[in-house]
Amino acid sequence: MSSILKGIAASSGIAIAKAYRLVEPDLSFETKKVSDTVSEVKRFKEAVALSTSELEAIRDRAKVELGEDKAAIFEAHLLVLSDPELLGPIEDKITQEAVNAEASLKETADMFIVMFEQMDNEYMRERAADIRDVKKRVLSHLLGVKVLNPSMISEEVIVIAEDLTPSDTAQLNRQFVKGFTTNIGGRTSHSAIMARSMEIPAVVGTKEATVEIENGDLVIVDGLNGEVHVNPTEEVVKQYEKKAAQFEEQKAEWAKLVNEPTVSADGHHVELAANIGTPADLEGVRNNGGEAVGLYRTEFLYMGRTELPTEDEQFESYKAVLEGMKGKPVVVRTLDIGGDKELPYLDLPHEMNPFLGFRAIRLCLEEQDMFRVQLRALLRASEYGNLKIMFPMISNLDEFRQAKAILLEEKELLVEKGVNVSSEIEVGIMVEIPSTAVLADQFAKEVDFFSIGTNDLIQYTMAADRMNERISYLYQPYNPAILRLVKMVIDAAHKEGKWAGMCGEMAGDEIAIPILLGLGLDEFSMSATSILPARTQIRQLSKEDMKKLADEVLQLTTNDEVMTAVKKAIKL
Amino acid sequence: MSSILKGIAASSGIAIAKAYRLVEPDLSFETKKVSDTVSEVKRFKEAVALSTSELEAIRDRAKVELGEDKAAIFEAHLLVLSDPELLGPIEDKITQEAVNAEASLKETADMFIVMFEQMDNEYMRERAADIRDVKKRVLSHLLGVKVLNPSMISEEVIVIAEDLTPSDTAQLNRQFVKGFTTNIGGRTSHSAIMARSMEIPAVVGTKEATVEIENGDLVIVDGLNGEVHVNPTEEVVKQYEKKAAQFEEQKAEWAKLVNEPTVSADGHHVELAANIGTPADLEGVRNNGGEAVGLYRTEFLYMGRTELPTEDEQFESYKAVLEGMKGKPVVVRTLDIGGDKELPYLDLPHEMNPFLGFRAIRLCLEEQDMFRVQLRALLRASEYGNLKIMFPMISNLDEFRQAKAILLEEKELLVEKGVNVSSEIEVGIMVEIPSTAVLADQFAKEVDFFSIGTNDLIQYTMAADRMNERISYLYQPYNPAILRLVKMVIDAAHKEGKWAGMCGEMAGDEIAIPILLGLGLDEFSMSATSILPARTQIRQLSKEDMKKLADEVLQLTTNDEVMTAVKKAIKL
Repeated sequence: MSSILKGIAASSGIAIAKAYRLVEPDLSFETKKVSDTVSEVKRFKEAVALSTSELEAIRDRAKVELGEDKAAIFEAHLLVLSDPELLGPIEDKITQEAVNAEASLKETADMFIVMFEQMDNEYMRERAADIRDVKKRVLSHLLGVKVLNPSMISEEVIVIAEDLTPSDTAQLNRQFVKGFTTNIGGRTSHSAIMARSMEIPAVVGTKEATVEIENGDLVIVDGLNGEVHVNPTEEVVKQYEKKAAQFEEQKAEWAKLVNEPTVSADGHHVELAANIGTPADLEGVRNNGGEAVGLYRTEFLYMGRTELPTEDEQFESYKAVLEGMKGKPVVVRTLDIGGDKELPYLDLPHEMNPFLGFRAIRLCLEEQDMFRVQLRALLRASEYGNLKIMFPMISNLDEFRQAKAILLEEKELLVEKGVNVSSEIEVGIMVEIPSTAVLADQFAKEVDFFSIGTNDLIQYTMAADRMNERISYLYQPYNPAILRLVKMVIDAAHKEGKWAGMCGEMAGDEIAIPILLGLGLDEFSMSATSILPARTQIRQLSKEDMKKLADEVLQLTTNDEVMTAVKKAIKL
Repeated sequence: MSSILKGIAASSGIAIAKAYRLVEPDLSFETKKVSDTVSEVKRFKEAVALSTSELEAIRDRAKVELGEDKAAIFEAHLLVLSDPELLGPIEDKITQEAVNAEASLKETADMFIVMFEQMDNEYMRERAADIRDVKKRVLSHLLGVKVLNPSMISEEVIVIAEDLTPSDTAQLNRQFVKGFTTNIGGRTSHSAIMARSMEIPAVVGTKEATVEIENGDLVIVDGLNGEVHVNPTEEVVKQYEKKAAQFEEQKAEWAKLVNEPTVSADGHHVELAANIGTPADLEGVRNNGGEAVGLYRTEFLYMGRTELPTEDEQFESYKAVLEGMKGKPVVVRTLDIGGDKELPYLDLPHEMNPFLGFRAIRLCLEEQDMFRVQLRALLRASEYGNLKIMFPMISNLDEFRQAKAILLEEKELLVEKGVNVSSEIEVGIMVEIPSTAVLADQFAKEVDFFSIGTNDLIQYTMAADRMNERISYLYQPYNPAILRLVKMVIDAAHKEGKWAGMCGEMAGDEIAIPILLGLGLDEFSMSATSILPARTQIRQLSKEDMKKLADEVLQLTTNDEVMTAVKKAIKL
C-alpha cells in the first residue's frame, strides 16, 4: 500500500531509497516463572553466543571503516560478554529462582550498572554504559527483536526516526544515508540543520513516519515540498526521478554563480557565508560558493565521545577549517552546549527549562578550564587563516567582558611562551537573547561584530520553544517585533563602525532576505545549499527599494501582514 | 545544636515556632523473602488497621474544618482500604510467594493503579489516585515512617519544604502556618509570592532546610534578612522577639499612611495596587491601604480540585472581589495556567520547556469552552464594581484580537439574554513577553491598558529561567535592557492616552520604584504588604528628579551600574 506523509521541508532535494528505521527497539517483557530452568539457561547462553558473534563482526568492520579507536568500544562490550562474574549470577538466578532469562538478565545487569555508576573511579563508571549496551543486545536476541547498529549501514537508505539528536547524526555514515524523515522537529531543529549541512533531502515533523514506515519500504523524501511517499507506485517513482533531474538542472543553473560576487541590482555588496559543523562541511561551502564561514558550530567536536576533546584535537580541527578557507573569514562560535544539547561526560544538572538554562557561555564562564582549552586551541590556530571568535548566549555586558578577559589572558600566556598568535582576531558575539538586542548600542562599543542568531532570538522574543509543535505558529520570523530588534542591532553596529551578520535560518529565507538587505545586514550566513539561491535572489533586488520596503514593514502589526507585503513587493 | 541557614528574604517579618517538615517521606524498602508468612500477613493487617483509624480521624476533622466536600476524598480512601479485591491478593501474595508485606503491597497496588489508569472512564481513572494514596499510607505504617497530613496541622508551625507548589500551599491551614522556609526558589517563585500574599515571613532558597531541620526543632524565620535560625539559644530567641516587636512598630508607622494618597514630593499622583489570589486576600489589601487590585490571579480558582470550576463558582468569586473593592479598580487576569502551574484534570502535554510552552492565552484560545466560561463569569460580575480584564502571555496582536473578539461575542450573547453587563470594562494585556514590549506602540492603539509583568518579562528578555538557581544572577531587573523595554511600554501607552501599570515584583522594589516613577508608570501593583513601604518612599521622591535619574540609568551598561547609581541618587 502506498501512502503519503506530510511534514516540513527541512532540506531541499529528492531522495529515493529503502527505509532504515533508527528506532529504539521495544525490549519490554514480562517476568515469568519457568518450569524448565535447564533449557532456559541454554536459551540465555544461545543469546550470548549470538550477541558475541554479532559484536565480533561489528568490531571487525569498525576497525576497517572507523579505525581502531572507535572499534575499541566493541572490544569492551565483548569483554563484558565473556565475563563470568556477570554471566554466572544470571545463570544462577534462572536456576535458583526459576525466572525467565530476560528477567534474570535485567535484574542482575541492573544491579551491576548501579554498582559501577556509584563508583568514584571514572573508568569504572564508564563500564556501566558497556553493561547497559550489552544487556540491550542480549535482551534483543532473547526477544527476537533487532538491535540497531547505525554505524553499520552499508547500503543506500532513507533514515526514519522519531527525531535525530546530534549524537545520532554523528553516528550515521554519510556515504549511505541519502535522506531522512522524522516524526518531530521543525526547520530549525538540529536534525534539519544537520540535513542541510550534509546536503541531503529531509522532511521533519511528519508526526507518524516511524509508525507508517517499515524497514525496507521504498521511500521518497521530497525535501522541496515536505512530502514523504511510502511504497509509491512505479509511476510516482518515475515522476520523482524526473523531478530530481529538474532539481539537478536548477542546481546547475545556480552553480553558474558559484564564483560570482553577491551584489544587489543597484551595486551593493553583501557577504554570503556558510554555517558548518565540522571540517568535512568545507567541501559543501566551496561547492556552493560560500564567501566565508559565518558560523562554525564547535560543539560537534565535543559530541559522540566519552571525554572532552584535547587542546590538540581542537587545534587540528580549527586549523583545518582556517586553512581550508584560504584566508576567507571564519567565525568560530565557542562551545554552545546545554539546552537540548547534552554531553554525557559533563554531568549537567537536569533543568526544568533547558532552553532558559545553564548553557553556552554561562557554562563556559563557570567551567573555565574547559573554556580555556578551547580558547587556546583557537588562538594557536589563528595564524592559519582569518579567525573571528564569537561567544554564544551573551545576555549582558558583564558576560562579554569576562569572556573577553579570559581570552586575552590566554593570548598573553601563549605569546609569553613564544607561540604565534594572530594580532587580527576579531571578537564578537551572537545576538540571540532579547536583552542583548535591546542594548546593542552599548555592546557595539565593545565588540568587533554581531551575528544575529535568529533561531534562538525568535524563540526567546516570542517566549515560544521552537521545538514545541503545539505552539509552532509562534515561531514568527517576520513579526515586526523581531524585525525591529534586527534593525536595532544592525544600526548599533554601523554607528560604531562594526559589522553585523546573521547566522540563523532566517538569513537564507527568501521572504526575509529582501528585508535584511534593506536593513543593511552585512553578512548572511546559512546552510551551504542555500547560498546560491540567495545569491540569485539578491542579484535581482535593489537595495534602495528594499530599504523602503523594510521601513514600511517595520510599521505593520503582524507576521502575516509582513509576509504578504514582501510577497507583493518582490512578486513571489 | 543551633545553626543558621542563609537564604533569600521572600516575605518580610519574623516568625518563631516549631518546625513542620512538609517533605515526602522515604518509602523505599527492599524486597525480601520471609519465612513466617503468617505473622507477615498479620503485620500487613495491622498496618491496614492503623491506616484505617488514622483516615477515620482525618475524615472526621476534615468534615468539621473543611466541609463535607473535601472530606469525601478521605471517605474514598477508606473504601479502598476495606476492599477485599485489593487486600485479598496482597495477602495471598505474601502467603504464596513468601515475600515481605511491603513488596506484596507495592506490586499488587501498582498493578491495580496501572489497570485503573488505562480505563476509558474518567471516574475509574481517578480511583488510581486513591489507590496510590492508600498504598503510601499503608506502606508508611509498615515502614514505621510518618505520612504527611498537612491539612491537619493544628498548632503554630514553621513549614519546612524542598519547595512549595501552589497546590501545596492551597492545602495549608493559614491559621497555624506562621512562616516557612524552602530549599529552592527565589523572590519571584510561587512560594515567595504566596508567602507575601499570606503575609507570613518566608525565607526561600536555603538549599538545605529539609536536611538541617527536624520535625519539632525550634525555628526562627527572619524574612527581613533572609536567615533561618535552627534551635537558637534563648538569648537569640530574645533578640528576635525584640526584632519582631520593632518590626511591628515600623508597621504601625507605615499604617499611618493607610488612608493617604500616593503622591510624590512634587505632587504627582500614582496608584498603588495589590496583587491577590483569592477573595480572602482582600482583607490584606484593605489593611495595607491598596488603592486597587492590580492583578487578580484567577488560577487559584482552578487549582487544588478535580474538575474545572463552574461559571457560577467563578462568578461568585469575581463578584466578591469587585464588591469588596467598592468601586475601586480590579484588574482580573484570565487563566494563566501551564508552565509550572499544572491542573491535574486538564491533562496538558509534558513539555521540554514549559516556560516557553503551551500556557495561558495560548491554551485558552485553543480550549475555548473553558475560556468562555471564565469570560461569561467575569462579564456577569462586571456590574458589581470596576472591572478590567487582562489577558496573560500575549506575544502578538493576532492573539489579542482573537481573545478580545471572543470576549465581545460572549458579551453580546449575554446582553441579548437580558443579562446586565457593565459598558465600562477596560480590556488590556500583560506585557511579559519581549515581542509585545517591542511592539507596544502598535498594541497601544488597540488595548485599553498595559500591565507589565516583570517576573516573566525579565526571564524571557534575559533567556534565564527565574526558578533555576544556577543562573539566578541573570534575573536582572535593573539591566538597562529591561528598563528600556519598560520605558517603551509606558511611552507607547501615554502616546495613545492609555495607562500603564506593572504587576511584577519589581513594582514594589525600593531600587526600581524611583526609576519607574521617573519613567511615568501610572500604576504599581505589588504584594499588599509592600504597599505602605512603597507609599512612604514615593512621598519622599520628586518625580522630576527621578525622570532625570531614569534618563541617566537608561544609558548605563549593566544591572550593577544601575543599582549603584540609584542607591547613590536616593541615598539608600
